[in-house]
Amino acid sequence: MNDFLDLADLGSDGVLDLLGLAAHLQQCPDPTALAGRVLGLLFFNPSLRTLASMQVAMGKLGGTSFVITPGTGSWNVETQVGVTMNGTAAEHIREAIPVLASYCDALGVRAFAEGRDLAEDLAEPAFAQIASLCRVPLVNLESAVNHPCQALADWKTLDDFRVPNRGKFVLSWANHPRALPLAVPAAVAHMAALRGMEVVVLRPDGFGLPAPILDKARRAAAESGGSVVETSDRNAAFAGAHVVYAKEWGLTAKYGDAAADVRAREAAVDWTLRESWLAGARENCRLMHCLPVRRNVAVADELLDGPRSVVVQQACNRLTVQMAVLHRLLAGADPQD
Amino acid sequence: MNDFLDLADLGSDGVLDLLGLAAHLQQCPDPTALAGRVLGLLFFNPSLRTLASMQVAMGKLGGTSFVITPGTGSWNVETQVGVTMNGTAAEHIREAIPVLASYCDALGVRAFAEGRDLAEDLAEPAFAQIASLCRVPLVNLESAVNHPCQALADWKTLDDFRVPNRGKFVLSWANHPRALPLAVPAAVAHMAALRGMEVVVLRPDGFGLPAPILDKARRAAAESGGSVVETSDRNAAFAGAHVVYAKEWGLTAKYGDAAADVRAREAAVDWTLRESWLAGARENCRLMHCLPVRRNVAVADELLDGPRSVVVQQACNRLTVQMAVLHRLLAGADPQD
Amino acid sequence: MNDFLDLADLGSDGVLDLLGLAAHLQQCPDPTALAGRVLGLLFFNPSLRTLASMQVAMGKLGGTSFVITPGTGSWNVETQVGVTMNGTAAEHIREAIPVLASYCDALGVRAFAEGRDLAEDLAEPAFAQIASLCRVPLVNLESAVNHPCQALADWKTLDDFRVPNRGKFVLSWANHPRALPLAVPAAVAHMAALRGMEVVVLRPDGFGLPAPILDKARRAAAESGGSVVETSDRNAAFAGAHVVYAKEWGLTAKYGDAAADVRAREAAVDWTLRESWLAGARENCRLMHCLPVRRNVAVADELLDGPRSVVVQQACNRLTVQMAVLHRLLAGADPQD
Repeated sequence: MNDFLDLADLGSDGVLDLLGLAAHLQQCPDPTALAGRVLGLLFFNPSLRTLASMQVAMGKLGGTSFVITPGTGSWNVETQVGVTMNGTAAEHIREAIPVLASYCDALGVRAFAEGRDLAEDLAEPAFAQIASLCRVPLVNLESAVNHPCQALADWKTLDDFRVPNRGKFVLSWANHPRALPLAVPAAVAHMAALRGMEVVVLRPDGFGLPAPILDKARRAAAESGGSVVETSDRNAAFAGAHVVYAKEWGLTAKYGDAAADVRAREAAVDWTLRESWLAGARENCRLMHCLPVRRNVAVADELLDGPRSVVVQQACNRLTVQMAVLHRLLAGADPQD
Repeated sequence: MNDFLDLADLGSDGVLDLLGLAAHLQQCPDPTALAGRVLGLLFFNPSLRTLASMQVAMGKLGGTSFVITPGTGSWNVETQVGVTMNGTAAEHIREAIPVLASYCDALGVRAFAEGRDLAEDLAEPAFAQIASLCRVPLVNLESAVNHPCQALADWKTLDDFRVPNRGKFVLSWANHPRALPLAVPAAVAHMAALRGMEVVVLRPDGFGLPAPILDKARRAAAESGGSVVETSDRNAAFAGAHVVYAKEWGLTAKYGDAAADVRAREAAVDWTLRESWLAGARENCRLMHCLPVRRNVAVADELLDGPRSVVVQQACNRLTVQMAVLHRLLAGADPQD
Repeated sequence: MNDFLDLADLGSDGVLDLLGLAAHLQQCPDPTALAGRVLGLLFFNPSLRTLASMQVAMGKLGGTSFVITPGTGSWNVETQVGVTMNGTAAEHIREAIPVLASYCDALGVRAFAEGRDLAEDLAEPAFAQIASLCRVPLVNLESAVNHPCQALADWKTLDDFRVPNRGKFVLSWANHPRALPLAVPAAVAHMAALRGMEVVVLRPDGFGLPAPILDKARRAAAESGGSVVETSDRNAAFAGAHVVYAKEWGLTAKYGDAAADVRAREAAVDWTLRESWLAGARENCRLMHCLPVRRNVAVADELLDGPRSVVVQQACNRLTVQMAVLHRLLAGADPQD
């Protein structure tokens, strides 16, 4: 493993291998494995879980880390190629990435989607360029349409709660004051499909996942024996569900059209997930969310504070699985060897 | 000791015990005591001393730390229960605290008072909720009406300068452009009373400390043989003083009324502490302040730069005593054992 | 070496000694040299390279560090003496520096020029005061008119690329949306002169380096056998150049006059360095820049992405030479001893 950019690069065998290493490190900590190793962390966007858990993961393996936040204590950084930099950005990733990479043994980068042009966001131009500029292992801390650390942690959470590999996984759109990126829904739909699950994407009209995202999830499902469908039928979606994964994202029918997004969102203002919606789900159906979650906007208090919720465990697993990722990328050999 | 939230939880014996450990660690550093231990630091408000000294304290004991600052590189965090989160906060403490606690062995939190409703601030609703959500030891890095790290450091500073336990401790209100919280005056009045001192709170009319704060300090005084009085008589207050502790705080007579606070502050605009005020104090009367201090607004340069000032030593002692707090909370056993 | 404030304090022998130590540490890492040592980092201005590389340098030598950024998570800090602090600054360096110094074994400070009064900026009032207040070794991370870490790294880069000591070093003014400080041009002109180079400062009329900066560089040249001239003749400047060091700075003829600076800058809008300018330079003439660089404003893409550019190597060398600086300041003895 040279980078950690996409669970699709690993396949299900690769995922299971990493989860095995994560379990091993939970049992047998390896507190000097990364002694002398440095993780650089570059955050173009806010973070709580990733920011904290990545630093802790390095510390627990004996390494260190540093954080750069363009625009907050550090220069604004341009990602477009060929531009005349007479705006707010004083620095370009063509310098920033090679320089930061020279200071560290692996670099983690968070760079959300621009949210203006769907084809462009799907192509991940910023992240692809960053990857081409980075001569040390690169870790995707959430890009335009991917979030492999979250997806890996979520797989582990499904395992921890013994959700069957063939179980029904409902990825449900949820309300939010504004359009959020497609990274988590894309990564999570793919992850559940790769795990072999019956994936149902439930969303209002206009919020369907783009075809390339669905196609990628379906290719994973085809290999694993799972399936991926989309629907706007709430009752059908939740019937018999093992897991409901709530997530907010923007209008895809008119991607980047803020006014249309607002109108579509007003029509879907009742999409706050609540217990009554899950009447047809399994009794032990779990509620998942990648966090942060806006209470009583995306998900009602009653669900988040109720017995279905495993959202905190998902976040806890971020640390667990990222230790495995960093160990695999940076340690000389596996601890069990 | 399971948490470090209030010197009142410790009593004077508990404080002396911690100060003994602090002195021991100054003599005999224990640089691997907290190897592998992680301190999470959550700052809802700015900091210089606490932010630096807490990180250094962990480092000097062999541990590590991480910092989360809601609104700066991290999501704005809601503390109210039951609200519909359609404002600026993307995250709620009901998720943030359990998640951060899962990444660390102890969590330090700074969360200032709202400054709108006195009864509410005195009840510490945010901090009480945080404590209920945190399954690892919690350290109060300044809450609505408490600042135990500062109070503990100040006690040590009084000891370092051999201020008598029964000495006269004048907590003097000082000018500031706007209302500041009651945390330091409350914590320091209680600390001095617990140490057995003759505590005089000097303040303009309308700025009296709220009854629950005075009552708590008086209960401590009753046990220790000290006393607590309030006055607006400057000469009487400073006469024979061993210590003058300058501190700014808001109008309490009309708590949360910004216009009334401004008017009261205009009437007290001469409350910049200066040497001439201390004519009746002891020759070696010390000037204390928790910092940051606005020079020539709260305290004149002549005092801060003069021989009475021990404000830098107070800040230095933050590191010293916090190492003891963290050692007691997180090390397996005391170093002298 | 008690502080690291100016290459002029070291002389060329001192520089060569540090570069020797840097090379030694590259060959023979000393990962526990600074165990238990703490570097405080105080940034009044944004940073990417310095912020990351200083933390990494401490980590690679076994030490730790903390970062304070006034105005971002920490109080705004006043540097003027004697003022009445009723503005935005809650804290004064007269407290902040002694307090931070008490928490660490060395303190690094970045404090850019005010850019209003040339004589004042040349006198470095903030940095001089900080130095007088700091009882631990102080490291200049860029002050009003100096940047010794950059200059030391640049010397190493010149050595790495075997640029002759007597080679021609053209410091060329470059375009920028607004006036930048004189710190890098001053430090780099002095460094190249101290190395014995033929230094040519190329700039539009009105942007000449102030006499005290040129005089200092010329004193260094006089000792080393180098030379320092200024010109606005581009072809003459680049003819036979071994190195072109591009750098932006403000109008010096009317220093601090923003309107005049804008007008002068409009007249110099074509000063974007490009390959065609270097027709008369040596075939292997190197392009240097301290970064961050605004692409296609200060320097054209074709140069930054072309074979002449060593800007990333300059930044990489920041880490290398700063490890030597910190080792010399904080380690008990040199590793080779």
